[in-house]
Amino acid sequence: MSASPAIRAGAPDTDLALAAGLRVRVRVPASSANLGPGFDCLGLALGIYDEVTVETTDDGVVVNVSGAAADQVPRDGSHLVARAVARGLEFAGVSAAGLHLTCVNVIPHSRGLGSSAAAVVGGLAAASALIAADGRRPGLTDAELVQLSGEFEGHPDNAAASVLGGGVVTWMTEDGGYFARRVDTHPAVVATAFVPEFESSTTVTRGLLPDDVPRADAVFNVSRAALAVVALTDDPDLLFAATEDRLHQDYRAPALPHTHALVTALRARGHAATVSGAGPAVLVLGTAELDADDAAVAAEHGFVMTPLLIGEGVSTLP
Amino acid sequence: MSASPAIRAGAPDTDLALAAGLRVRVRVPASSANLGPGFDCLGLALGIYDEVTVETTDDGVVVNVSGAAADQVPRDGSHLVARAVARGLEFAGVSAAGLHLTCVNVIPHSRGLGSSAAAVVGGLAAASALIAADGRRPGLTDAELVQLSGEFEGHPDNAAASVLGGGVVTWMTEDGGYFARRVDTHPAVVATAFVPEFESSTTVTRGLLPDDVPRADAVFNVSRAALAVVALTDDPDLLFAATEDRLHQDYRAPALPHTHALVTALRARGHAATVSGAGPAVLVLGTAELDADDAAVAAEHGFVMTPLLIGEGVSTLP
Repeated sequence: MSASPAIRAGAPDTDLALAAGLRVRVRVPASSANLGPGFDCLGLALGIYDEVTVETTDDGVVVNVSGAAADQVPRDGSHLVARAVARGLEFAGVSAAGLHLTCVNVIPHSRGLGSSAAAVVGGLAAASALIAADGRRPGLTDAELVQLSGEFEGHPDNAAASVLGGGVVTWMTEDGGYFARRVDTHPAVVATAFVPEFESSTTVTRGLLPDDVPRADAVFNVSRAALAVVALTDDPDLLFAATEDRLHQDYRAPALPHTHALVTALRARGHAATVSGAGPAVLVLGTAELDADDAAVAAEHGFVMTPLLIGEGVSTLP
Repeated sequence: MSASPAIRAGAPDTDLALAAGLRVRVRVPASSANLGPGFDCLGLALGIYDEVTVETTDDGVVVNVSGAAADQVPRDGSHLVARAVARGLEFAGVSAAGLHLTCVNVIPHSRGLGSSAAAVVGGLAAASALIAADGRRPGLTDAELVQLSGEFEGHPDNAAASVLGGGVVTWMTEDGGYFARRVDTHPAVVATAFVPEFESSTTVTRGLLPDDVPRADAVFNVSRAALAVVALTDDPDLLFAATEDRLHQDYRAPALPHTHALVTALRARGHAATVSGAGPAVLVLGTAELDADDAAVAAEHGFVMTPLLIGEGVSTLP
């Protein structure tokens, strides 16, 4: 995929009303962003999935939520999934008198595993599926899903991973474009997440990054990001060198001392560990399952070790 | 390749003298470094080759040079190829009473096409071939050639491209290690060089780069460098976006006004143009040969358009 139009070419200017009774169900993966050197540009879909069911009704927005953080989110149109469904419909010039959403959340919230991106992508993909079910207009393309979800998130690497699955290289343009290209991870690559009980705020940790950085550090990350694509797709033995970073993780360490300590401990044990997104979760990429000693190290720092499959992109379920 | 030892493990401490009369011939490609966003880390071997013939003799160093810039280089042991041969022999604990070098230079000098890196790699590879011809010790590995040539150059992307051929991702470590991984370019990728009559000094242009850069520019280049690997190897349609850069080309533009103007003009025509190395040559990567109009644009700026094959790594000739 190489084009992500900010608005659909020839977007319809007449509003099309969906009948009540259309029902779709989508499955959307978690993701890890800012992989190693790839701040805002390298993401990976993870095999933990939320499910969103949306049914068109005659009146109003109702949201049912179960699972992770179910008690912390609004149950009306201000719910993130509901807003994403509305945006997807609006983008295609489609409306619905009412929506009934059922969200089954499995992805841990506010841990750096892309739960908000998954919510947005799930909502947009559900809107797309409703439009396709109606049949009078086409659903949203992957490029459109990447663009619209990027606009919600402000950075594309989590959301694009949830859209496309696998690994993603993402980029932004000055005119507000969000773009992504899936890269198939080498079959030997396995991911292990380390998830703590505590949460983190991306807004806070992003504020710790300086406006200027040493050119040498920029060049350092440029080389490792290029290497990361080679390592992920073709030569996993390079993952340790390819996950080195000088542009974000150390700056954020003061806000995430336990995360920083765990990344340091795991790398000292030879594992290609990085902060997942803005943390606090940690991700290890490699070619072998980690062992009980690694789990014990994680437990000492307050993290639970969780082996994961690489995630598949968002999809509709029967 | 993922290891580039700074010194050979178990390096021999006894000096082995080569007999007179050993004769080897190597062919070494030109290269383009700093590809787009990939400052110091993305290189490409180009199908222009220098040849180096080295014969062991009984006494002294003699250098014969023909071709490009033949009248501008010394003819004794201070010649760059001769120094590289000497370094290669020394590294393996081998000596020769005398060396007779014949250099046939085809790569244009001081244009940003890696002529000095080719000279270094040609000399090191010739030393390796002499050692192998002698037969008592193994020649140099690719990792050793990358390390030793990187030490000569101070950056690895040109030299590694000359060693490995194709595209290369290179990286450096704080302890002085130079590393490289070849990436096979997509079969549809074609390279076109634009070579001017005037020369440039890497030393001067490197001095134009600032010590600090905006973090946003660093992140910009990180994303494009990751994308460049995808574009070069798998999806050449992405080459235009993947050759965008904010870390080196604009800073050097004042020293290279004609080069900057040509890159701008070619990109305005839709071509993925970048400065080759530190200039003044320009490289375009794409999937189609350029046309007479492009050649005319180049001529207006004082450049000659030259379609090139992707280069093969340094090799010995019969």
